[in-house]
Amino acid sequence: MSIASLEDLFIHTLEDVYFAENLLAKKLPEMAKKSSATALKNAFEEHLAETRTHISRLDEVFKSLGRKPSAEECPAIEGILEEAEELLEEITNAKTRDAALIASAQAAEHYEITRYGTLIAWARELGHEDILPHLRETLAEEKNADNKLLRLGEDQINAKAA
Amino acid sequence: MSIASLEDLFIHTLEDVYFAENLLAKKLPEMAKKSSATALKNAFEEHLAETRTHISRLDEVFKSLGRKPSAEECPAIEGILEEAEELLEEITNAKTRDAALIASAQAAEHYEITRYGTLIAWARELGHEDILPHLRETLAEEKNADNKLLRLGEDQINAKAA
Repeated sequence: MSIASLEDLFIHTLEDVYFAENLLAKKLPEMAKKSSATALKNAFEEHLAETRTHISRLDEVFKSLGRKPSAEECPAIEGILEEAEELLEEITNAKTRDAALIASAQAAEHYEITRYGTLIAWARELGHEDILPHLRETLAEEKNADNKLLRLGEDQINAKAA
Repeated sequence: MSIASLEDLFIHTLEDVYFAENLLAKKLPEMAKKSSATALKNAFEEHLAETRTHISRLDEVFKSLGRKPSAEECPAIEGILEEAEELLEEITNAKTRDAALIASAQAAEHYEITRYGTLIAWARELGHEDILPHLRETLAEEKNADNKLLRLGEDQINAKAA
């Protein structure tokens, strides 16, 4: 695919995020399963429900732009999740693994935070006012999910791992 | 390497960030070279100087912990930068490439933001009070670099790309 304009770049990035959200929806149940703390397991299950909402919102965004939803392979989220898997395999006890699961999930959240931030800036520039509320809602939820994970680590998980 | 405690995980993540900062120090000059806007070229050159400071701070952190600086290969930052390179190759005009360079650099910044955030939470839990100022200073600079790139996009680069 050749990218010749900001509009092309915007669509490419939308497809990249669509791939990332779908991959995350596949990996979150595995992360929930690997969690030993109930609060962490619940956090992953709640974020899976949110991630499915984000995918539906992207479906709406593609529709508003007169396009079919499409995913573009995203080496960044693949690298982030590959690193998470390699790390989890090296960990020999459950409480340390819980702390690593939080860090890995926060890395995935931050990838989405940066991409939605970029998409919002470009959508504003391109005059795609109608899709901005969808993108902003998802960005707010990703930031909230990241903060919840950080607090869960600080309030419960890290102390048990230390 | 087997990780059996939060302390092990902390060291592993420090080595991961050390790898990421060093890779970024290699890639930033290429990103500056690929920029067509002078303001963007300058932003990358300024951030290269900051990145070198972050590496020196990590050297100090390793020293405080009685360890030699060591890098652990980090598939996450490799994936983020691989995605950036693939994307830039697909772009056929300089002004669109500038917008993509900002997005790519912000993705790298966000990776560092999440990792330093995690390192700070774990250092607090582990009682490594002496290294906290170093980690906090770098985190503040990464957040500032991310905001500067966002504003540069919104104020100058995106409009030229659209």
